[in-house]
Amino acid sequence: MQDFHLINNSINTFIKKNVQIGNFNGVILGLSGGIDSSVVAYCATQALGNKKILGLLLPDKENTPQKDLDDALKICAILNLNYKIIYVNDIKDKFLEIVESTDNKLVKGNLISRIRMCILYYYANSLNRLVLGTSNKTEITIGYFTKFGDGGNDLLPIGDLYKTQVKEFAKFLKIPDIIINKKSSARLWENQQTEDELGLTFEDLDSILMFINKSDTKESINLAYKYFPLISKEKISYVLSLKKNNAHKIKFSSICSLN
Amino acid sequence: MQDFHLINNSINTFIKKNVQIGNFNGVILGLSGGIDSSVVAYCATQALGNKKILGLLLPDKENTPQKDLDDALKICAILNLNYKIIYVNDIKDKFLEIVESTDNKLVKGNLISRIRMCILYYYANSLNRLVLGTSNKTEITIGYFTKFGDGGNDLLPIGDLYKTQVKEFAKFLKIPDIIINKKSSARLWENQQTEDELGLTFEDLDSILMFINKSDTKESINLAYKYFPLISKEKISYVLSLKKNNAHKIKFSSICSLN
Repeated sequence: MQDFHLINNSINTFIKKNVQIGNFNGVILGLSGGIDSSVVAYCATQALGNKKILGLLLPDKENTPQKDLDDALKICAILNLNYKIIYVNDIKDKFLEIVESTDNKLVKGNLISRIRMCILYYYANSLNRLVLGTSNKTEITIGYFTKFGDGGNDLLPIGDLYKTQVKEFAKFLKIPDIIINKKSSARLWENQQTEDELGLTFEDLDSILMFINKSDTKESINLAYKYFPLISKEKISYVLSLKKNNAHKIKFSSICSLN
Repeated sequence: MQDFHLINNSINTFIKKNVQIGNFNGVILGLSGGIDSSVVAYCATQALGNKKILGLLLPDKENTPQKDLDDALKICAILNLNYKIIYVNDIKDKFLEIVESTDNKLVKGNLISRIRMCILYYYANSLNRLVLGTSNKTEITIGYFTKFGDGGNDLLPIGDLYKTQVKEFAKFLKIPDIIINKKSSARLWENQQTEDELGLTFEDLDSILMFINKSDTKESINLAYKYFPLISKEKISYVLSLKKNNAHKIKFSSICSLN
C-alpha cells in the first residue's frame, strides 16, 4: 500500500524546488488528455499555482481523437490553466514535403513526437520555463518513448511511479474516472494501443519490472521465470531485451573515452 | 604531445563497434563545413567506408554563409560521401508562423538546431542508422550546444577532445587548412562567433577546463585563480558557472525519486 500523501508531497516539492533553484518563471507541459499528463498537471498546479503553468495541447488531426482533446481541455478547466491548442499537422506536412517520404509509421510517429518537443521548448525558452515530462517508471524502464521527442524534457515528476501506481495515484488526486479508465495510447499512429503493442497488460509488465529492477543478474532472471508462471518465458525475455536495448535512451550520448 | 595515431584508432574503433553491436546500417551526421563535423566525417569514413555514411548539409539561408556550404561540399568530395542538402528555412518559417513570434535570437537559434536534429533522426530512423554528434569536450563541459538540438545524437566520437586538441588532430588527419583555420561559430544568428560570445580564446578556455576538470573543489578553483594570472577571476568564475549551470544538458532528465 502506497502512502499517496507522501508521494504527492515529494512530487510537489520536487517541482517547486527545481523551479526556484533555476530561477524559472514556471513550467510548460504537453497535455494529451491521458492519465500521465493529467497527474503531472495536477501536481504542478498544487506546487506552483495555476498561473505558473502553461499547458500545450498539440493534437495531430490524423491521430488524435477529439475525445482526447476534450479530456485535455477538461483538465485545463478543472485546474483553471492557461493553455494553447497547436495542431502539429502543418509543420509535420512541411517536414514530409522536404525529406524523402516514408510509409514507416514509427518514423513518422517519432517525427511528430520530436515536433512536439520543439514546440514545448520554443515556449519554454521564450518564457524562461522548465519543460515537465510525463513519462512514468514503466515507460522509462523499457524505453517506451521517443528519444528527444517526449523523452526530451527537463523534469520527470512521475518518473519513479510505475503505470499501475500512477493509476492509483490519479484516483487519490480525484482525476475524472473517464481519464483514469481510458486505454493507454501514445497516439502516434492509428489504433496504437500500448498494451496491444507490448503484448502485455500493465499489471503483468509492472510485476516483471518491479522484480527485475531490483537486480537483473542471470539468477534473478531465472527466478523471474519461476516467479511468474502465468507469463511466458518469451514475454519476460522480451521485457528484459527492451530494457537492455533501450538503455541508451535514458543516458546522455555515448562519448568515445580516450583515457 | 598527443599520440594522434592512438586517438584516431580509438575513435574509429568506437564508431565501428557501436554500429556493429546495434546491427545498424551505418551513420548519419550533419556537416556544417566546420572543423568538428569534418573531423568526425573523416574518422567515420576510415571506420566504416564511405558507403555507410550519409552527410546531411542543413543550411539556413539567413545564417549559413555560402562559404560554409562550399566547405561542407568539399569534405563530401574528398571523402566521396553520399550527401543531401536540405534548407531548414521552410520548416523554420512554418514553426514561426504557428507559434507566437519572438525577436529572441537564442530562442530562434535553438529552434533551428532542434529542427536539424529532427531531420537527422528522420533519416536515421528510416535507414536504421546511428546519429553521430560532433560536439567536442570543450563544448560538452560548458554546455555550449542546444539541448535536444545538436546535443541530440547517439555517439560523440570527439567528445573527449578539447577544441584545441581537435585542431591539432585535424592537422594530423590532413583536413584542408581553410577549414582548420576558420573561426568557430554555431551560425545560429548573424555574426555569432564562439570566442567573442564566450569572451575567451579557446586556448585560455581549454587551459581553464583542463585544470578544473581534474577536480572542481573550492581549493582547486582558488588554485586556478593563481595558476592563470593573465586570465581575470571573473572569466574563470564565468567558465565555472557555465559548467555548473549547464550540467543538466549532459544528463538524462531529472527524475523525482520516491525512495
